[in-house]
Amino acid sequence: MRCKRCGRDANVHIRAHNIALCAEDFLSFLERRVSETTRKYGLISKGQRALVCVSGGKDSLSLWYILNNIGIEADGFHIHLGIGAYSDKSLSKVEQMAERLARKVHVTFLQKTLGQGIAELAKRLKRQTCSLCGTLKRYLMNRVAIEKDYDVLVLGHNLDDEASALLGNILYWRKEYLWRKHISLEGIEGHLAKKVKPLFLISEREMASYAFLRGIDYVTDECPYAAGAKTLLYKELLNRVEEESPGTKIRFVMGYLAQAGRDGEKRERQFCKLCGYPSYAERCVVCRILERFGTGRPVAFEVYPRTG
Amino acid sequence: MRCKRCGRDANVHIRAHNIALCAEDFLSFLERRVSETTRKYGLISKGQRALVCVSGGKDSLSLWYILNNIGIEADGFHIHLGIGAYSDKSLSKVEQMAERLARKVHVTFLQKTLGQGIAELAKRLKRQTCSLCGTLKRYLMNRVAIEKDYDVLVLGHNLDDEASALLGNILYWRKEYLWRKHISLEGIEGHLAKKVKPLFLISEREMASYAFLRGIDYVTDECPYAAGAKTLLYKELLNRVEEESPGTKIRFVMGYLAQAGRDGEKRERQFCKLCGYPSYAERCVVCRILERFGTGRPVAFEVYPRTG
Repeated sequence: MRCKRCGRDANVHIRAHNIALCAEDFLSFLERRVSETTRKYGLISKGQRALVCVSGGKDSLSLWYILNNIGIEADGFHIHLGIGAYSDKSLSKVEQMAERLARKVHVTFLQKTLGQGIAELAKRLKRQTCSLCGTLKRYLMNRVAIEKDYDVLVLGHNLDDEASALLGNILYWRKEYLWRKHISLEGIEGHLAKKVKPLFLISEREMASYAFLRGIDYVTDECPYAAGAKTLLYKELLNRVEEESPGTKIRFVMGYLAQAGRDGEKRERQFCKLCGYPSYAERCVVCRILERFGTGRPVAFEVYPRTG
Repeated sequence: MRCKRCGRDANVHIRAHNIALCAEDFLSFLERRVSETTRKYGLISKGQRALVCVSGGKDSLSLWYILNNIGIEADGFHIHLGIGAYSDKSLSKVEQMAERLARKVHVTFLQKTLGQGIAELAKRLKRQTCSLCGTLKRYLMNRVAIEKDYDVLVLGHNLDDEASALLGNILYWRKEYLWRKHISLEGIEGHLAKKVKPLFLISEREMASYAFLRGIDYVTDECPYAAGAKTLLYKELLNRVEEESPGTKIRFVMGYLAQAGRDGEKRERQFCKLCGYPSYAERCVVCRILERFGTGRPVAFEVYPRTG
């Protein structure tokens, strides 16, 4: 097959877009799509300071790279979860990219802040690890973005992540989540950072090709506590449909976005009496955990490597 | 495994309901569920005359049997599509059941009414066979129900049919169909018969077991023009999820029913100037086809065998 742009040998064939491209043209094709998505959905405006949440995996690291490559100044934020070698390896990939981009990265070590890693914490609190991890991540990302004065928090969820989560929410009609998976969630001054997902329309396979062709070094292991069977099963099933009808996943999430724009209701927001961040109760989950296990004072953030 | 009701050897294990039953108790368990669904959703009231659309397959023939067995007087309606031996075999299974139940069955022969079978008709009209078949079936069912003075039209769609169609509508957000797959659709006096689906919450596997254990003889071949890959793929995928999480299909369609009750919009109805039945244009599709290929007069219905 020939590259549709330059006529050289094609390296990547994207069935959903019915296009074959050489490595170089694929990289700019993908970056242009991120750029267009960012503009079309008003994700990040010119001159805004962006903070990318980087886990050390292919999506978030590539996203961080792409943003800086398309003219958006983006720093990184990483949470070291204290899951042994997995967390150390993740951090080192993140540091590597920070150096490559010559950008700041903020790091929070759960063990320093809460005295223990995510698994031990979940055990002691008798909570499910992945659910607790999600809660803590959302809290920390939001807090760092606001305290460090970033305009927008950027997440690396790709098309497959969004489509599979959406399918799960629809199969069980989880109404409390169903209309909240938007590509952009508005913030509330001083309380809630605006959150955006520029990879919403880019598939996992495309991101893997991008990372590979850009020579981005990332953690390939799944988190040992990974959500497991359910999400992976949904991804597999959607890929089966995608094989039969290329483009299904994109149509699915774009149809959802159009629908969510109309049906998505604004939630009433409540704020924690202690820290001021969004909460379902008087005191937020994290403040309650901090009281019990933490240092008593707000979580500490480091900047690493110290380029700033 | 032992039957949960009587303690004898169990023949059927229904994972979605986490219950094992012997043949006899399974039959009454399933009939009770159809009966409860019929009552709970107000499908058919005491004393109403019901007309079951019977194709000759396991679902519609079993449904016809069940209704008469739970005290609902139901006649049958069959359309002979003129698909060679397949249609003749289907008709003979339907007649067999009519005799077993000693109930009337109305039959329309496409070849007599329109001079040709469904496949030839589709070819000459340059339409897709399955889509044309659906249009004609909906028209004829509705017309027979109203002209023969039945109170309610009963369809044999099972849980797997509904869940897979729903999944397809959601993957592509087909808004024009999405909120219309209800378990019960109200009628309009003189124009549109009420339509109900008592098997909405009963799986394909349960229906196959029922037909087998009741000794119901049905056509096992798929229609040679069957919708094919897409619907079958969706069914397969949903069954994969069902395997992991028994009960998913039921929760999926019940969640949908709850949602559809709120979101489903009432459509504006328009009626054909010639026949008076629902239409998207001044003259309905069927009247236009009838003018071109038909006898010119309304379609003829037979009653077979002549028990009435």
